[in-house]
Amino acid sequence: MKLLEDRILNEGVVKSGDILKVDMFLNHLMDIRLYRAMAEEWKRLYEGEEVTKILTIEASGIGMAALAGEVFDVPVLFAKKAQTSNIDGDVYSSKVFSYTHNREYTIRVSKQFLSPEDKVLIIDDFLANGKALLGLIDIVHQAGATVTGCGIAIEKAYQPGGEAVRSTGVRVESLAKIKEMSEDGIVFEH
Amino acid sequence: MKLLEDRILNEGVVKSGDILKVDMFLNHLMDIRLYRAMAEEWKRLYEGEEVTKILTIEASGIGMAALAGEVFDVPVLFAKKAQTSNIDGDVYSSKVFSYTHNREYTIRVSKQFLSPEDKVLIIDDFLANGKALLGLIDIVHQAGATVTGCGIAIEKAYQPGGEAVRSTGVRVESLAKIKEMSEDGIVFEH
Repeated sequence: MKLLEDRILNEGVVKSGDILKVDMFLNHLMDIRLYRAMAEEWKRLYEGEEVTKILTIEASGIGMAALAGEVFDVPVLFAKKAQTSNIDGDVYSSKVFSYTHNREYTIRVSKQFLSPEDKVLIIDDFLANGKALLGLIDIVHQAGATVTGCGIAIEKAYQPGGEAVRSTGVRVESLAKIKEMSEDGIVFEH
Repeated sequence: MKLLEDRILNEGVVKSGDILKVDMFLNHLMDIRLYRAMAEEWKRLYEGEEVTKILTIEASGIGMAALAGEVFDVPVLFAKKAQTSNIDGDVYSSKVFSYTHNREYTIRVSKQFLSPEDKVLIIDDFLANGKALLGLIDIVHQAGATVTGCGIAIEKAYQPGGEAVRSTGVRVESLAKIKEMSEDGIVFEH
């Protein structure tokens, strides 16, 4: 998606430790017009596919998933990373290792909000090692529901996550796929 | 706002410990059509007021703030509760005590995303003790920016937060104000 690629090229900052800083439009300050355009692109890509619910994970995925929820006209469920009093009773949970934060955490979704009839589109901002996405897919499968596919904003295509998810047969549509990046520049894969 | 009050009456569950469970449409499964209607109501209430940016706090505020960002056509910034590699450099921070989680935490916003020219609408799902809202207002003031007002989904009007914020001169518009609630029922204030 050229609009997103251009924003990454013009504003993104590559930092040491394989970090792409896009907090000026994607994961701290949220450019809602861009989010809307991304949501419409996911809608175009999944045209003809059935989606009854969107699933994302707190916190960076929520904003773009909310706009996708509007465009797909379905409710949006977000997995929680911490045990909270807002969520109780029976939950589906999955353990996810975060390379960003260098620790394992448990993601949770209330059982009452996913049913075997659901066709789920999973939305997230980044795909790198794929651990969060595999955790979300695991939760959908625990519910007996179907994963229609995944909508990712930025995929680090040189990392193993994309292959790890696609090799399970799950469709992944990433709006910007980075083939390589360094402080000298970013190259996209098309 | 009758639409929100009806949802609270029909689906909300009052639990011991002053908990109103609304995770089935507001803070776990997100009803995006409801969010859109709430955003349009905040827009109507703040008609004629200048808003250049929306500020919220992770995680439950993000979805409704994203829809408000679309309706107001402004970017949305969310304060982070944890130190993360997505946010570095200079930050505005404020300490907030959470009665829900019974601990103090620090909320942070990158300095580069708030400027003295900003007219900020602050959005959050709940107003009870007001600690989170006062922390967000503190951050806006640290930036030298102006708080146009606050847009809250559900205010527990029997708790001190609403008065604590309004007494500082900041406008607060809550879409549902609960005068009293118990397991026997919920009474709204109009």
